[in-house]
Amino acid sequence: MPLKSGFRSLASVEDALDMFLGSLEPLNRVEMVSLEEAGERVLAADVRAPRDVPHYDRSAMDGYAVVASDTFGSGKDAGVILKLTSKDSIVSGECRQVHTGSPIPEGADAVVMLEYTEAAGDGVEVLAQVSPGQNIGLKGEDVRKGDIVFREGRLLKPSDVGLLASMGLTEVAVYAKPRVLIIPTGEEIVPRGVEPAPGQMNESNGVMNYLYVKRFGGVPTVHGIVSDVKEELAAALDEGASYDLIVTTGGSSVGKRDLIAEVLASKGTVLVHGVAIKPGKPVALGLVDAGGKRTPIVCLPGYPAACAVDSMVFVDPAVKKLGHMPPAAYRTQKAILTRKIYSEAGYRTYTRVSVEEGRATPLRTKGAGVLSSISRADGYVITPPDVEGHEAGEEVEVTFLE
Amino acid sequence: MPLKSGFRSLASVEDALDMFLGSLEPLNRVEMVSLEEAGERVLAADVRAPRDVPHYDRSAMDGYAVVASDTFGSGKDAGVILKLTSKDSIVSGECRQVHTGSPIPEGADAVVMLEYTEAAGDGVEVLAQVSPGQNIGLKGEDVRKGDIVFREGRLLKPSDVGLLASMGLTEVAVYAKPRVLIIPTGEEIVPRGVEPAPGQMNESNGVMNYLYVKRFGGVPTVHGIVSDVKEELAAALDEGASYDLIVTTGGSSVGKRDLIAEVLASKGTVLVHGVAIKPGKPVALGLVDAGGKRTPIVCLPGYPAACAVDSMVFVDPAVKKLGHMPPAAYRTQKAILTRKIYSEAGYRTYTRVSVEEGRATPLRTKGAGVLSSISRADGYVITPPDVEGHEAGEEVEVTFLE
Repeated sequence: MPLKSGFRSLASVEDALDMFLGSLEPLNRVEMVSLEEAGERVLAADVRAPRDVPHYDRSAMDGYAVVASDTFGSGKDAGVILKLTSKDSIVSGECRQVHTGSPIPEGADAVVMLEYTEAAGDGVEVLAQVSPGQNIGLKGEDVRKGDIVFREGRLLKPSDVGLLASMGLTEVAVYAKPRVLIIPTGEEIVPRGVEPAPGQMNESNGVMNYLYVKRFGGVPTVHGIVSDVKEELAAALDEGASYDLIVTTGGSSVGKRDLIAEVLASKGTVLVHGVAIKPGKPVALGLVDAGGKRTPIVCLPGYPAACAVDSMVFVDPAVKKLGHMPPAAYRTQKAILTRKIYSEAGYRTYTRVSVEEGRATPLRTKGAGVLSSISRADGYVITPPDVEGHEAGEEVEVTFLE
Repeated sequence: MPLKSGFRSLASVEDALDMFLGSLEPLNRVEMVSLEEAGERVLAADVRAPRDVPHYDRSAMDGYAVVASDTFGSGKDAGVILKLTSKDSIVSGECRQVHTGSPIPEGADAVVMLEYTEAAGDGVEVLAQVSPGQNIGLKGEDVRKGDIVFREGRLLKPSDVGLLASMGLTEVAVYAKPRVLIIPTGEEIVPRGVEPAPGQMNESNGVMNYLYVKRFGGVPTVHGIVSDVKEELAAALDEGASYDLIVTTGGSSVGKRDLIAEVLASKGTVLVHGVAIKPGKPVALGLVDAGGKRTPIVCLPGYPAACAVDSMVFVDPAVKKLGHMPPAAYRTQKAILTRKIYSEAGYRTYTRVSVEEGRATPLRTKGAGVLSSISRADGYVITPPDVEGHEAGEEVEVTFLE
């Protein structure tokens, strides 16, 4: 008669991630994108310089291109006067004005900086000695044509893209973003825009995960709501097989209406069911066998706070690994707790806090006012399983997961 | 005859930002967006709950809805047996099975948790006493219809959007994103896809800033390349007046071909020209008077490393302020320097470093290999004007700006 029994055992977060991520292979799909689309994409191949950089002998200074030997013996009290020309080639006794980046005229082999020169009639007096090659950036000095500039696997930053543009590239090969099918489940869930009857609620985990998956680096699609019916859940998982990752929300616990793990077991492999994480214990991780392939699946709980934490803990690294992206790196901040944080030993606990002037206040997660409390949340205090809570006044690290 | 003279004086970064940001007003344009589009957007009005939350009296536990007074005196050795019913209303002597979230049947006023019950024929034995209201979430207990749930100005996180969805909202009023016109300038710049002659280079700062502006939260448009001709620059600034912010790249110094500050002075106000920042000194900030309004403008230098730093230091906060967004918060990390960092007193200096295993290595910014060096950059060490460099072995803070 029990409506609800416990999980037989709970995996640690680390073991659950190891098992699940260990079963995933990064995707091999590659696409060519324009540089405008290349920001925060991952290079699918080494990028080689399509030409020398610089692609011509260039002046590294504002000044005058000269024949170096003309300046030998010059100094601030012993200038040499050179004839100013604007021709594309010079000979001994001549000089030509150059800017930083100007091509070096034929015949010149050095540049005298502007500050070591003075006007002298229609010529220029050079008051310093330069050696051959001085203040000239030689063709190919920076990068030789064919040299590798960025390695496969690089997550492109805006300045990286600028560099690719400056080398003459117009598009680049990147790994495809993982396509993620999000399936909201639950007989009590009604679509947005429909007024829920008592006992019903509007779908919300789907759109939340849609936004998470985008942020994680995936391409999300939200499936229609699926009721707590085994055949319908199974059919939805079949549809998911044409995606790179399936994410379900709701029905992931072990109660009478919690069918997803059972359906997953019948259609593939349950790698993990139940993790020592709070909130978020009723999460399942596995693989769906359908469409001639194995598609990874994360079954998130329906309780929104648990759904959010499990999405960041399990869906994010899965999307990142599939898409060849480095793991997420979060901003953290030290803060003093204004109130005690309770956490149960054995669980990794995520406590939402609001942070103001270096002080972190844990937010209520139950009872009246919980929604408006959550709406002030800034970050999370993450308590490892071997720590039992934190005292008021203790310094903690706040992680800004969102 | 000087090709290049210095700036008369340099503003500090703080003063430059104060002057420039002080001249900007956040935009008033508001748009309604669906929840799928609401991630990382800023609320343009307080959001009020469109209905009570919960919108019905709901069970807070799995168990049985009862008439509380039927349980008075019950305990683990003195159970009371109630008749199990599935009707929508109960009377004294009856109970009905409920799940967490189930509506409370008419006539019931408490829920007995499953663990305090036992099956007893076709009835249920209740082995604990509950008081009226116990384990029931009353309609409106969390949020009352009309209560403010999120304040105007909130930057919406995925979990915030989930909350809005769960309350029955389908769209939300947000501030428009600032529209930014990026104008690459320079007679030596040729479009991407065109092979540059000696002395020319492919346009790269435009696409870099396109990606920065998107990341900052704006909507970028890249203008065609404008040559170093006053009339053409002035015409481009006029076009910029139909945007919220203008960003030019190149020609922002004080040399012969550096015309943008002069053109800006003729078309509006130069608030700042020359900032004590390295790289990035030749930056101008001001306002263009055209189209019946004043449009803020950031004139970035053409040297890519300087252009990138100035974009993050000046364009980012301008976009954020125009768009009602909070200032950027960057991830930082302590690291030990492997090599000395040179910085000039009086300048805020941004030194690119690569970070590996807690060790930060400053990257070469000049000479051979500079490009491939930059392609390994992870973050910046930011040295304030009153500090002269850092020694090898010193612990520094690395800021991950990109």
